[in-house]
Parts: sequence; C-alpha cells; structure tokens
Amino acid sequence: MKTLLGPFAQMLPMTGLSLKGTLQDEQLAVIEKGGVVLEDGEIIAVADYKSLLKKYPDSEIAFIDTPMVLLPGFIDCHTHICYDGTRNRDYAMRIAGKSYLEIARAGGGIWDSVTKTRIADIVTLTENTVARANRHLKEGVTTIEVKSGYGLNLEGELKMLRAIQQAGLHTKATLISTCLAAHMKPRDYTGSETEYLQWVSDELLPLLQQEQLTNRVDIFIEETAFSVDAATVFLKQAMQQGFAATVHADQFSAGGAAVAVNTGALSADHLEASNEKEIALLANSNTVAVVLPGASLGLGMQYAPARKLLNAGASVAIASDWNPGSAPMGDLLIQAAVMSAAEKLSTAEVLAALTVRAAPALQLKDAGMMLAGYAADLQAYPTSDYRDILYYQGKMKPAMVWKKGELVS
Amino acid sequence: MKTLLGPFAQMLPMTGLSLKGTLQDEQLAVIEKGGVVLEDGEIIAVADYKSLLKKYPDSEIAFIDTPMVLLPGFIDCHTHICYDGTRNRDYAMRIAGKSYLEIARAGGGIWDSVTKTRIADIVTLTENTVARANRHLKEGVTTIEVKSGYGLNLEGELKMLRAIQQAGLHTKATLISTCLAAHMKPRDYTGSETEYLQWVSDELLPLLQQEQLTNRVDIFIEETAFSVDAATVFLKQAMQQGFAATVHADQFSAGGAAVAVNTGALSADHLEASNEKEIALLANSNTVAVVLPGASLGLGMQYAPARKLLNAGASVAIASDWNPGSAPMGDLLIQAAVMSAAEKLSTAEVLAALTVRAAPALQLKDAGMMLAGYAADLQAYPTSDYRDILYYQGKMKPAMVWKKGELVS
Repeated sequence: MKTLLGPFAQMLPMTGLSLKGTLQDEQLAVIEKGGVVLEDGEIIAVADYKSLLKKYPDSEIAFIDTPMVLLPGFIDCHTHICYDGTRNRDYAMRIAGKSYLEIARAGGGIWDSVTKTRIADIVTLTENTVARANRHLKEGVTTIEVKSGYGLNLEGELKMLRAIQQAGLHTKATLISTCLAAHMKPRDYTGSETEYLQWVSDELLPLLQQEQLTNRVDIFIEETAFSVDAATVFLKQAMQQGFAATVHADQFSAGGAAVAVNTGALSADHLEASNEKEIALLANSNTVAVVLPGASLGLGMQYAPARKLLNAGASVAIASDWNPGSAPMGDLLIQAAVMSAAEKLSTAEVLAALTVRAAPALQLKDAGMMLAGYAADLQAYPTSDYRDILYYQGKMKPAMVWKKGELVS
Repeated sequence: MKTLLGPFAQMLPMTGLSLKGTLQDEQLAVIEKGGVVLEDGEIIAVADYKSLLKKYPDSEIAFIDTPMVLLPGFIDCHTHICYDGTRNRDYAMRIAGKSYLEIARAGGGIWDSVTKTRIADIVTLTENTVARANRHLKEGVTTIEVKSGYGLNLEGELKMLRAIQQAGLHTKATLISTCLAAHMKPRDYTGSETEYLQWVSDELLPLLQQEQLTNRVDIFIEETAFSVDAATVFLKQAMQQGFAATVHADQFSAGGAAVAVNTGALSADHLEASNEKEIALLANSNTVAVVLPGASLGLGMQYAPARKLLNAGASVAIASDWNPGSAPMGDLLIQAAVMSAAEKLSTAEVLAALTVRAAPALQLKDAGMMLAGYAADLQAYPTSDYRDILYYQGKMKPAMVWKKGELVS
C-alpha cells in the first residue's frame, strides 16, 4: 500500500547538492506545495503534490492540514550516548574555572564515566541508550551513531556494544555502533599504549566481528590519549581486518586529521585545533570533516573552523558529540544553529551538514536525501519557510517525524 | 488557607548572597528535604519539610513525590517580545556572511520590525506577547521585562505599551514594561536626534505617565543609534520626570555604560564591547551589569566580559534580549548555561544572575529569593542535584512552575 504525504508548504529534498565545499541557499531545491509517496518504509516519489495525486490515485492519503516544511531526518554521526552516571560535578567545577587537572584529581574526566559504566548492568545501559535515542528521534534525528569507549576492557566494551545492539531493537531510530576501545589507555592496563592497541586489534576486534557487534572503529588521537604513530598502526590493522574507521582528531592539538586522511578514514571528527595544513589535507581528501559544536559549547572553547573547511572545499558534517562530560546538552539542532551564527555557515551548508553530507561518514546509501529508493526518514517543521529552522536557533522542533515511513512523533 | 509544598530533594532560596562580585557554589544555601509554606500567593516560611509539617499542622499539603530541586522563578530583565513579523530573512543572510549594510539594503534590520509592528493591530501584538510570555513562564521565567521600541512614533509606542499592559492581564507571568522610543531615530522623523529625544521627553513620556503605561525608559547608545551626549540629556530629563532608566550600552562600541553609571541608571545592558574602564565604572556603582548571551549567540559575536565584571566586583544579571532580530531563540536558561561554560561563571553566579541579582534591575522588592513575604514565584527541576540545571545546558526544563502560589505549568 502506497501512502501520499502532503501537501507541504515547502519540501527540501537535499538532492543535487555537491558533497564538498561552499553552498548558497539559492542552491537548495525547494519544492513548494510538494508531496512524497511512501511504500514499505521507502520513498517512491517526491514531487508536486497535485501531480502525485494524479499519478498515484490509489495511494492512501495522509493529509497535512497546516503549513509544514519537510526535510530528511537528521543524521547524528558522532555520539557517546551509551553510558551510565552523571558528570555534573565535573561540569560545575569546569564552569567555575577549575582546571582539567583539578577536575581529574577530584575523580572526574572520562575515567569517571568508565568506572560508572563498567559497574552498570547491560539492561541499564540499554535503557539509557534507548531513552537518549528516542529524545533525539523526537527532535528529528532519525539515524544515530553510538560509540563504545567507556568499557575499555573486554567485558566492558562487549557489554556496551551489546547494549547498543539491544537498544537498536528497542528504538525506532537507526543506531550505528562504533568500537571506541581506543578512547584512552585504561588506567588499570599495565602495558604501553602500543600494547593496549595491539590487544584491541588482536583480541577485541575479532570478537566484535564474530558477534557482529560493529564494523567500525574510532580512536582518540591526542597528546593525552593516543599518539599519531600508534594510531596509524592501529587504524591500518583495523582496516585490514575489515573495519571502517573514524578518528577523534585535532580536538586540543593538531595531528589526528592527517592520520585520518592518510589512512583513508571515513571521517575526522572534532577539528577545533585544525590549522591551515589540516584544512588543506581534509579538503583534498574523501574524509568527511565532522565538526562538533556541542563540545565547544560544553567546554567553552572555540569552534572547529567550519567556514575555512568549506571554503577550502572540504565536506563538512555537524554532529552532536552527545556525551556525559564535554557535551551533555544533546540537542543537535541548537548546537548547529548556534555554531552557524558564529562561523557564518549558510542555511544550506548547515542543513546539508546534518543530512546528505553526514551520510557518507556512516556509509549510508539510503539516508540524508528525499529520493526514490531512500528510507522514508522524514521530519516536518511547523512553518512555511525553511529559514525558520535555523532562525529560531533550534527552539522550533519538528511537529512530525517519520522513521521508515512510520509516524513516530 | 496555607499550603505546604514539599518535600524537595534540594531547595535553593538564593538568600544571603552578596549582590555584587564573585560567588562560589559553596556559598549557595542548599536546604535538603526542604519545604515551603504559601498563603495568598506569598511565601510564609522556608525550612526543613518535617519542621514545617509540625509548625503548620493545618496547612494543605501539596506533596512532591519525585525528587525535585526548587528555585525562585527566573527574572528576565531585558526583552523585546512585543513585536510582529519575522526577521528570518535577515538571519539567513547574516549566517550566510552578508554584512549589516547588505541586510539593511535588502530591507532588514530594526526598521523592518518597526514597519511590521506599526502595521499590526493591538490585539495581534497582545496575543504575540502573551504567547511568548507564556512560553517563558513554562520554562520557569516568572517575571519578564518587555520593551516598546518598534513603534517609534506616538501611535506606535502607545499601541505597543498598551499591548504590553493588556498582555499582562492575559498571562500569569508578571510583565514589566519599558519605553524604548529611543531605540533609533525613526527613518520617517525629519528632525535631529536631539529633537527626536526632546519630543519623546516632552510629548510621549507625559502621556505614558498619564495612562500609567510605564515608569521606565531605555535608550540605545551606539554610533548607529543615539550619542552619549544626547542620551545623557535625555536620561536626566526622564529621571526628573520620575522615570527609572536602563540603557542599551556598549554593544558594539564603548560609551553607554559610562552614561548609565553617571546618570544613575538601574542597569547597563549588553556590554559586549565594554573594556577595563567601563568594567571599573560598573563595579564601583549600583548600576546592574546586564549581560545578554542571546544576542551574542544570535549575532555570532563575543560575550560580554561577565567574568571580568564579577571579578571587578560588579553585580551581573543575565537576560535573554529575546527579540526578532539578534536574539530570536528566546531560551534564557540555554543562553545562560552556554555562556557560563565560555566565560567560566560558577553555578552560583549564574543562578544569582537569573534571580536575586536581576531583581534590582527591575526594582523588584518581592522576587528573586525564597523568603517570607516574597511572591511565591517558584520552579522545580526534575532532579535531586541543582548542578544538573546548568549541566544539561538548558535542556532540562522545570517540571513544575508556580506563579504567586498557583501551579501554572
């Protein structure tokens, strides 16, 4: 049975846009009084509503009786929403001006989340993940990447990735998991960083493949985490084992983006400390530059140079980095909108960064655009002008959200 | 009839805090398992819940059965929520990198809101104001200042201030109006800026007093608006006429804060461009420094130097500046939380800036604290730890809001 959704005051299919470089709002295809035909969770046709009425006379009609703007669902290609425990103490200390070291001495930092997540049972982690995914889904985010990385041992990483897999069965949002066992060398691991990464490659990754828990790895390249050299070896090994890769790159110091580009990672994420050299490397690669304004807002630091990246010709996606430490807000649209005002990103560049330009970071072939054959992951905003979506800086939320054709909010 | 509300996991009465300078979180009075007794819209007692149960055995009990943190309602001492028309075109142009001049040439800027607000009828303006005030109220903002300033002629300013007065009768939030006829010299006024301000003093202000529409004036001191000299004359005259004053100061260039201090204005608002001299002046005055992170987030510019102001000993309040041009988000808590991470303001400093330190900017004698005799304007957050309020960066909203003792959300 086909369903015809519409009419919409405006539809932005996000098709026909370059995946790289600058975008002007005038380049956005905007279909006025448009409709979309769905069947079995897929988009069949996207066009003028009246023409669809004629072409699909037998379709069930889901009539939209108020002015709405229809977009593809957002894709959040970088989150850490599988965790237990709060880091509100860290946060209060940080905004009060305490240093990283003072917070660590008080028992804060990533290790605090590792401790709390290791203690949590899988049901709790699953429920936490589902709750956060459902909040995202209600706000129009229909595909969500979720990383492990608060386990940092065999049991803990397996538990997290199993919880993410379970959560995917209990939320309508699509969850895509990534192994971030290389988040930091765990404090209770007695070997070197190279030995730890070798253990991940040799022992953990084969188990993840065996159990089909994930086919993606991530590594945090930073002076306080893993070195450029060790990460390069690790990423090459993981890719040889069949894993796709992404990198936490250039958050506090440059180095990681070059590793991502040189190893052919799908994306280099963070980039707050990227300079002209890294920008040029990314622009001349197929690695998606994923900027994370939520981390900048949470830590009170500068944004990644999104404007410069686009000007240089890079592909820029925007993700939430939702995590208990540096990015606890978890509102992708507010973060993207606020960043756009500071970095001077056009509406077209922001909406593309949340949809069609985020899809390649997750190797999605059927999401991020409204196109025949694509998943019917859609969101409708209560306005007749798409510019309102960024104008209200994320306070206007979608009135309706569809996942695989099903109205979920 | 007395009502006993409680028990609350934590209550922050915001009492006993200095109105000026730095605050540590340790200085916040936190009552665990507390309660509050209300009668006729006022607070009667604030104490340990069990002791109140004994002391007020005949009170009606409003039992709170989940963990909640109780605060005084927020006071938003600077808004422009009485307007008609969108400025989404301006916004889209600005984030796409267009200059102020290009936007003005395309018909944007304050004058666009003046044009649209002049056309609007008073019922529309009243409804718009009520809708925005109610959204604020639901988010815990129980007292809201509202400026005119999109009329800029006799008819337009009277219409706006009457609409604000009417709106005050149709929302449970307390609205406090301010005449901002000195927002800019209207384009259709043929005289000089001095002549325009003299007209406001001589013709408009007496009418406002006669009709009891407001006892507050505001003026935008800026190179593109009114000069320091003209504003000083205007403010002195208005004060002699019995008006309390506030100033749009130092948003793009310094100058206004000194006028505010020298004329004894209640507050100097904006301050993004304040330097050491203005900071010292404010710190040594009774003028409240009102910072407006919403304008920084909307324009993508630097925050006011809130940290430096506090360190110097100033009284810092935080307001939303909710307006259709530069601050369309209209979420006071998100704005305050995001600014706190960048400026390194302690939780105590932020919560005080939204309550007890905002009250003097509006000469409120019964709001901003939980104290016997104060209005029972209260909000409860669904957590047992007050640090969560800023930790979630404004995404955690109050689960319950009381205005003058009445549960309104």
